[in-house]
Amino acid sequence: MMVVEEVQRQIANRALLAGDKLPSIRSYAARLGMAPSTVVEAYDRLVAEGLISARRGSGFYVSNVKQPFEIAQAGPHLDRVIDPLWVSRQSLDASLKHLKPGCGWMPADWMPQQAIRKAIRSQARANEEGLSDYGNARGLPELRNLLVRDWADEGLSLSPDQILLTSSGTQSIDLICRLLLRPGDCVLLDDPAYFNFQALLRAHRVTVIGVPLQKDGPDLEYFEKTLIRHKPSLYVTNSGLHNPTGVTLSLQKAHKLLKLAADHDLTIIEDEIFSAFEPEPSARLAALDGLSNVVRIGSYSKTLSASIRCGYIAAKPDWIEALTDLQVATNFGGPGPFAANMVFTVLRDGGYRRQLETTRTLLAKRRAEVAGKLDALGIRPWILPRGGFYLWCELPGNVSASTLARNALKEDIILAPGNAFSLTQTKDCFMRFNVSQMQSDDIFGRLSRLLDEI
Amino acid sequence: MMVVEEVQRQIANRALLAGDKLPSIRSYAARLGMAPSTVVEAYDRLVAEGLISARRGSGFYVSNVKQPFEIAQAGPHLDRVIDPLWVSRQSLDASLKHLKPGCGWMPADWMPQQAIRKAIRSQARANEEGLSDYGNARGLPELRNLLVRDWADEGLSLSPDQILLTSSGTQSIDLICRLLLRPGDCVLLDDPAYFNFQALLRAHRVTVIGVPLQKDGPDLEYFEKTLIRHKPSLYVTNSGLHNPTGVTLSLQKAHKLLKLAADHDLTIIEDEIFSAFEPEPSARLAALDGLSNVVRIGSYSKTLSASIRCGYIAAKPDWIEALTDLQVATNFGGPGPFAANMVFTVLRDGGYRRQLETTRTLLAKRRAEVAGKLDALGIRPWILPRGGFYLWCELPGNVSASTLARNALKEDIILAPGNAFSLTQTKDCFMRFNVSQMQSDDIFGRLSRLLDEI
Repeated sequence: MMVVEEVQRQIANRALLAGDKLPSIRSYAARLGMAPSTVVEAYDRLVAEGLISARRGSGFYVSNVKQPFEIAQAGPHLDRVIDPLWVSRQSLDASLKHLKPGCGWMPADWMPQQAIRKAIRSQARANEEGLSDYGNARGLPELRNLLVRDWADEGLSLSPDQILLTSSGTQSIDLICRLLLRPGDCVLLDDPAYFNFQALLRAHRVTVIGVPLQKDGPDLEYFEKTLIRHKPSLYVTNSGLHNPTGVTLSLQKAHKLLKLAADHDLTIIEDEIFSAFEPEPSARLAALDGLSNVVRIGSYSKTLSASIRCGYIAAKPDWIEALTDLQVATNFGGPGPFAANMVFTVLRDGGYRRQLETTRTLLAKRRAEVAGKLDALGIRPWILPRGGFYLWCELPGNVSASTLARNALKEDIILAPGNAFSLTQTKDCFMRFNVSQMQSDDIFGRLSRLLDEI
Repeated sequence: MMVVEEVQRQIANRALLAGDKLPSIRSYAARLGMAPSTVVEAYDRLVAEGLISARRGSGFYVSNVKQPFEIAQAGPHLDRVIDPLWVSRQSLDASLKHLKPGCGWMPADWMPQQAIRKAIRSQARANEEGLSDYGNARGLPELRNLLVRDWADEGLSLSPDQILLTSSGTQSIDLICRLLLRPGDCVLLDDPAYFNFQALLRAHRVTVIGVPLQKDGPDLEYFEKTLIRHKPSLYVTNSGLHNPTGVTLSLQKAHKLLKLAADHDLTIIEDEIFSAFEPEPSARLAALDGLSNVVRIGSYSKTLSASIRCGYIAAKPDWIEALTDLQVATNFGGPGPFAANMVFTVLRDGGYRRQLETTRTLLAKRRAEVAGKLDALGIRPWILPRGGFYLWCELPGNVSASTLARNALKEDIILAPGNAFSLTQTKDCFMRFNVSQMQSDDIFGRLSRLLDEI
């Protein structure tokens, strides 16, 4: 029942509101190339469900139903295995028995455990305020000052008042969406892009358009056409290392992108969550642009801890002021002083940087090893990224990544199939692998068998 | 209401674009068969929301919708001292030199410091996953199980899957608003009500209506009329001890309220954040209703720690499922395992309950003492609450609370004037005092002088 599902979805994501008239049976049937009787049947079912009602001689109208907003229903209906939310939920709720090559973080024993424990113990001896009070509305001043000094080294000069600490990188983007977007606005994402960007934007009820990603950044010709045609307000992307592909934006493309943003009044959210994994820093939009069209966001969930979380936003002063209000209104402030102090203590300590260095070396070795083992199965990386733990790989022959993921799940293996990252649903021959979660050789044997069985 | 929604929708749908002229008030009113004053009111609200603007002698035009959403501008323009957000921001950013009788929490040395430090030290020895991983999507199972057992004792029977852990009580309400509301909906609050409820609802761009609060709960006659006239979707209130008044809902009113909610398809958010301060439990809507029309929310920020925060939502299973998706999409999960484990460890320990008992006794003593000292200044509590740290007091003579607050701020004293809590702006003769923040006798002398100087 395509018609039933389409109308249900349009009501769920508020594209159709109470009182709106539905297309006539004749025109709907013509548009979809189906028999009018099929549309009649569908409308009858929607009437039975109470979603729409008929007015004699006038047509069908959306009923006044107080239906909760279910984000899973707010986008195109997808196979569960490639639904963006479903991949996140599976990874979060996985138990120890699961293998998780599809998951978006490193195993706990790759994280700087010693530094975390040391920082926690020092907090246990901290002053009373730090353990019980809400803390400053913009977040711990010491951590914001440290970020200002770090960023000055890469040529980004700003004041601590231009930084807002948040609970997570995701919450950073969410707050910016609250500031800049309204339902019905248009937003650009890379295709492929991190799947939770899609889920987050669904929650804001905006139209999302994908821009093809090339090996040095987005396809700028396509990008410009989209700017002209759809007038998007926002573009969300990763800097440093792109998720899922590991692509690094070239300096030349970075400049062109900023020119386009300035010309078309586009704001760019630059999510630098993976940039600490780069062997050496690449072009940063925020530093090039000076936070005029760019908002920088990030967090320490990938490199330090996802249990004690702390993210940030760097933007124009008046935007930070408005974002601070929004964070007070919707969460009564950001990360507590405890989390911010933990991050500050670890970042200040030289041990963290040394551990990052070790992790980068280890990841480079694992990327090469895993790429070799996948290659033996006919699974080929699209590029070999400069850093990070992702390999974006093409599957052999005509294997469907979603079929493979579905079969793997029955055996408690969580994979991340390409179309979960693709707005255009054109990446079903791709799979994202996390090399840090593939330490047991067992996984390659099982992948080989699963490929054979398709 | 209709006009506001129609214009909002037309802008969202791009039926109206930036720069388009809106119909004249006269013609719009004629077309819809309503009084011109209704259209004037609607246009005023749209101006306040920043969606349209007036051009002198020419009419109303659609604003550039790329304008950032500034929550402070999203409601009626208020004197800064009584703007809901401003009171929060002042309290959060106060330094040690400030006196804070207006603040919404207890001083750090009233919080269970020993229990917090002990729980933190035990976490520093915890397993690696608990220190670095994101944890379960609904939040730490051990804490959810403990809540299920605790709530069974008060007659609320539910499964751990009906609980979602969140970063804070405020975030709990925010997620429910995302689930149930859309711009233009109508929501009820008590008048007076906690000021951040107003700020939060502004962020959701809904219409908020105040229901007069009586000494045993809301004025139910007014409540029912408002249900019929405005068809609100939601009512947000405190259970146990109301903020700012300290009112306890009577059992009889609780029953009537639930009947009204069921008859009018109204959801009630019951925020029990202050209920741990009650000498003995009062009527709980969630327990009476069994989570049919009621959603229970709360947190430990007032009794345990606002630095390591953890809140919760208890609701129908399908709502929790949808709320979990929303929390993943907008924050990639809730509180990390560290915060949830800290709360779990403290709650499980008998010491916390004993400390709460001590705090309750101490607060009862302080309420009586402070009430006596305020009385000597002619400042009279509206009621003497059964528990908690608030006294909602009437000022002597014709003193304006906002004037007093403005003058006090010049001397680094942060007060919470009545109109910050009042949607109808009718509480300027009231002031909320926090007895736990008034331990120095100095404050009474300074209040006395400030009153004399008006």
